[in-house]
Amino acid sequence: MQVSARNALKGTVKKVEVGSVNTEVTVEIANGVEVTAIITKSSAENLKLAEGKEVYAIVKATDVMIAID
Amino acid sequence: MQVSARNALKGTVKKVEVGSVNTEVTVEIANGVEVTAIITKSSAENLKLAEGKEVYAIVKATDVMIAID
Amino acid sequence: MQVSARNALKGTVKKVEVGSVNTEVTVEIANGVEVTAIITKSSAENLKLAEGKEVYAIVKATDVMIAID
Amino acid sequence: MQVSARNALKGTVKKVEVGSVNTEVTVEIANGVEVTAIITKSSAENLKLAEGKEVYAIVKATDVMIAID
Amino acid sequence: MQVSARNALKGTVKKVEVGSVNTEVTVEIANGVEVTAIITKSSAENLKLAEGKEVYAIVKATDVMIAID
Amino acid sequence: MQVSARNALKGTVKKVEVGSVNTEVTVEIANGVEVTAIITKSSAENLKLAEGKEVYAIVKATDVMIAID
Repeated sequence: MQVSARNALKGTVKKVEVGSVNTEVTVEIANGVEVTAIITKSSAENLKLAEGKEVYAIVKATDVMIAID
Repeated sequence: MQVSARNALKGTVKKVEVGSVNTEVTVEIANGVEVTAIITKSSAENLKLAEGKEVYAIVKATDVMIAID
Repeated sequence: MQVSARNALKGTVKKVEVGSVNTEVTVEIANGVEVTAIITKSSAENLKLAEGKEVYAIVKATDVMIAID
Repeated sequence: MQVSARNALKGTVKKVEVGSVNTEVTVEIANGVEVTAIITKSSAENLKLAEGKEVYAIVKATDVMIAID
Repeated sequence: MQVSARNALKGTVKKVEVGSVNTEVTVEIANGVEVTAIITKSSAENLKLAEGKEVYAIVKATDVMIAID
Repeated sequence: MQVSARNALKGTVKKVEVGSVNTEVTVEIANGVEVTAIITKSSAENLKLAEGKEVYAIVKATDVMIAID
């Protein structure tokens, strides 16, 4: 499957924290650069997410903001 | 200002493409890793975004999906 | 690729309307039921979207609201 | 009330799963086609959502991605 | 229609700026407090938005971030 | 830090409700006008959010819908 989302950042799962409805997944996409995702618990289970697994962090371009110091 | 968004990826603006209402901004957040943002044209102007500028790409954790091959 | 987004609605492209930065794509996901997506112009080009093409409309569960009459 | 969101998919609530802050609602929008929403627990209570209730699943066009096989 | 989005801020349209696919709408929700929305051009037309019109700015709670100085 | 999000509504925290993964924050942005945010529990802790604290409710323009009666 190929998705229209402009951002598909390849990385490795660092942490999976399970809540009641949602699960928080931390992905290392470059040395020392992490992206955190909140997905549904059932999605995390379907994808069999676990520490060390290779994944993509996917983000629509309209969901990215730009900030400056 | 400190924002609740979990993801603030430091990087450098690579490209700014201006539309009629929106502007597309490409940010390199690690060697060869780019994130694309669509923000309003006026926001891009307010932030004086231009190639080479140091910025943060900011994304809420709920806006990140996880995909596997 | 398998995505964490809970909603992947299979359908057929009905219309592709190109803007300066964004493109509007209408997908029929059931008889008479349509979903409209705004994606970047370059994503639409990458996916070679055109009328009649089979696609999935993908939506994160947190991006769906519920309304009642 | 009439909303600017391009997608208002009429359907029937199939399942309501309550979490601590959020609630997951599954809506059948066509024969065998379901959409899942995560909304706040208090919103679900305000709307008195329950199995069998007729609702709309509402999604902004910018929150829809397109994928191909 | 009653929507699950937690935030429905009543206000008056201050400005409507039309683009090729999207339209930017500015709403005054309190004295001197404005909210800007980007919606599709066709949605803006359907709602017959114009300066002075009474509207609601609707935002899902998961789309709001919190920042501090 | 200056953010591209068009909407930064200054206000005061009225309520903080902690869940297992997420936290719900209510902000009064004008006399009697409140905005509710769902952010991650750890973000709420990082920002030391508590009743009475001055904050900004930040929303991207593409995440705002317009509704009429």
